[in-house]
Amino acid sequence: MHSQRLKKLLETLQTHNLDVLALNPGPSLFYLTGLHFHISERPVVVLFPRGDSPAIVLPELETPKLDSAPFEMRAFPYGENPNSWGAAFREAVQFVGMAEARAGVEPAWMRVLELRYLEAAAPKAQFVSGGEVVAALRMFKDAGEIAAMRKAVAIAQDALKATLSAIRPGVTEKEIAAELITQLLRRGSESPLPFQPIVSGGPNGANPHAVPGSRPLRRGDLLVVDYGAAAGGYFSDITRTFALGEVAPELSEIAGVVAQANAAGRAVARPGVPARAVDDAARSVIDAAGYGRYFTHRTGHGLGLEVHEPPFIRSDNEQILQPGMTFTIEPGIYLPGRGGVRIEDDILITGDGCLSLTDLPRPLWKISA
Amino acid sequence: MHSQRLKKLLETLQTHNLDVLALNPGPSLFYLTGLHFHISERPVVVLFPRGDSPAIVLPELETPKLDSAPFEMRAFPYGENPNSWGAAFREAVQFVGMAEARAGVEPAWMRVLELRYLEAAAPKAQFVSGGEVVAALRMFKDAGEIAAMRKAVAIAQDALKATLSAIRPGVTEKEIAAELITQLLRRGSESPLPFQPIVSGGPNGANPHAVPGSRPLRRGDLLVVDYGAAAGGYFSDITRTFALGEVAPELSEIAGVVAQANAAGRAVARPGVPARAVDDAARSVIDAAGYGRYFTHRTGHGLGLEVHEPPFIRSDNEQILQPGMTFTIEPGIYLPGRGGVRIEDDILITGDGCLSLTDLPRPLWKISA
Repeated sequence: MHSQRLKKLLETLQTHNLDVLALNPGPSLFYLTGLHFHISERPVVVLFPRGDSPAIVLPELETPKLDSAPFEMRAFPYGENPNSWGAAFREAVQFVGMAEARAGVEPAWMRVLELRYLEAAAPKAQFVSGGEVVAALRMFKDAGEIAAMRKAVAIAQDALKATLSAIRPGVTEKEIAAELITQLLRRGSESPLPFQPIVSGGPNGANPHAVPGSRPLRRGDLLVVDYGAAAGGYFSDITRTFALGEVAPELSEIAGVVAQANAAGRAVARPGVPARAVDDAARSVIDAAGYGRYFTHRTGHGLGLEVHEPPFIRSDNEQILQPGMTFTIEPGIYLPGRGGVRIEDDILITGDGCLSLTDLPRPLWKISA
Repeated sequence: MHSQRLKKLLETLQTHNLDVLALNPGPSLFYLTGLHFHISERPVVVLFPRGDSPAIVLPELETPKLDSAPFEMRAFPYGENPNSWGAAFREAVQFVGMAEARAGVEPAWMRVLELRYLEAAAPKAQFVSGGEVVAALRMFKDAGEIAAMRKAVAIAQDALKATLSAIRPGVTEKEIAAELITQLLRRGSESPLPFQPIVSGGPNGANPHAVPGSRPLRRGDLLVVDYGAAAGGYFSDITRTFALGEVAPELSEIAGVVAQANAAGRAVARPGVPARAVDDAARSVIDAAGYGRYFTHRTGHGLGLEVHEPPFIRSDNEQILQPGMTFTIEPGIYLPGRGGVRIEDDILITGDGCLSLTDLPRPLWKISA
């Protein structure tokens, strides 16, 4: 599997006009090699030259991990004294012959730390964005990847059901988040979780990226719970919204609008349609209901080894949806000072339509309070 | 508190010959502002110009977080379309007047993503390492920070004690790690944990950075458990080594040597002594016992908002230890194919010596098996 991915990568480097791809630890390196490294003050970089075998610069104490590498990588280990690290980079750069290469890096993963070592080792090389090279391969999930995502969805759905009894007036967002995390891990989610659960009640729900706080839930609150699990390195990402007892009519109304917007997005997602059509479908429902300016984010994002990856479901994204793509549909309405609603599903594009991997009920979940 | 830290930062920028410090989300930004942001494909950067008020570039949907900022920051929010992000950076760069500035960035935190936006917005500015600017402030912990670290230690120690009953032959490393994580969170550790626990038994223990695997523990194994908790953003980082029943004489011997090395390191740690003296003290015990080449890493690292931060306890580090510094002492011996021992404590330099915040028993913990 990994050897095939490597082969595909090396074929695509030419298309991207790159001589080398330089990756540091993260989802793309895991996808290609199955290897995990701690991201720390000690830089780790793998160089994938077009048509040759890869080289890896890494701390000596990480070299045992190479025993489980799926293909040969020439190792350039370094010791504890940072003065020696530059030499390891220079030797690796020489080994792959990238002195004057056009080299791709992943801007959202490579740090200035690794970039500066590479630049110093290959001052005549050009370092450009290669963020799309592995992302383009990773965008199409194979059967094994989809099975992992299904497992991540099942764990997350079970965990939310097991957390329901903790949701009631007087309980804080932090307490609910802690219970949800415990349930996720108990049900087999890998750790770390894809992201820290967002549990935001009442006015906090109007902040789509709120951090769980110490405010106790009150009767009449909406509660947004946005969270996920990890299985085999792959993520789920789900949002459901709860009502604590009776809520104000407008809060009920926006919950209904968001559920319709979510359904509209799912109804148009199929092969051959541009990503923006899914955003348009969801957004136009919210616009028509008069809440357009309270839907402050894109409709969704790709999901897999990263919680945000291509394809992005955005009004300006012409990318054509194709079988094997996986992404979220998560419209929301956020009323400042009052509360928010978001309903998020994990979608797989199939041969002739789409499938929601998530199937928890979507209407407002009423908690008797 | 945050205003004082900001004031100190602005004073030190001149010393470091920097006009501006550019920080993305991470421990230094949290230290200065108390703010957390998700690190994602959407860049967030705060610019701290010498003598002026800071500016922040961030996604529109993150702006509610600024309500809890401890001091004024001029916000330059951007929308969902990446084509608009460059403009937000250009406006922020103009606001702080850094067109030709010497700007510091933290190489281990800033990504190529943020760097490229900054470079494009200020093509005549120079971007250099400012990694030591905030690190130098963060190196001296105040009473509140030490209290948080003590809490992180207490949670971690309680969690390990509660996990003891799960350690027995037949149980896998992964199962022990899962139980330890559950106990850490149940006892109040914040999530994410400082790092994924290392639980490595038998031959895996010879890899200092092993990832927990599916090998069941056996009688006669050593088991290394290296883990920590988080409280108030601050970390603990502890390692203890267990023996499952009777172990081979040499494994017992190395455990004794490592315990002596740990004690030797703690015995010399005090104000006025260079960091290398602690490494020397621990290493010379292991060298003298004939295991020098099996102690493959530095003796320790600073600990606080990061699990690895200055001061590094390394043979070439002349940095003078001073009151308020916190770091680990964690000598180890790793016998390839057989097993490893590491004993790690969290140390605070006091007015006249040092204090181990951790006080779990250090000799090999014998599990009857």
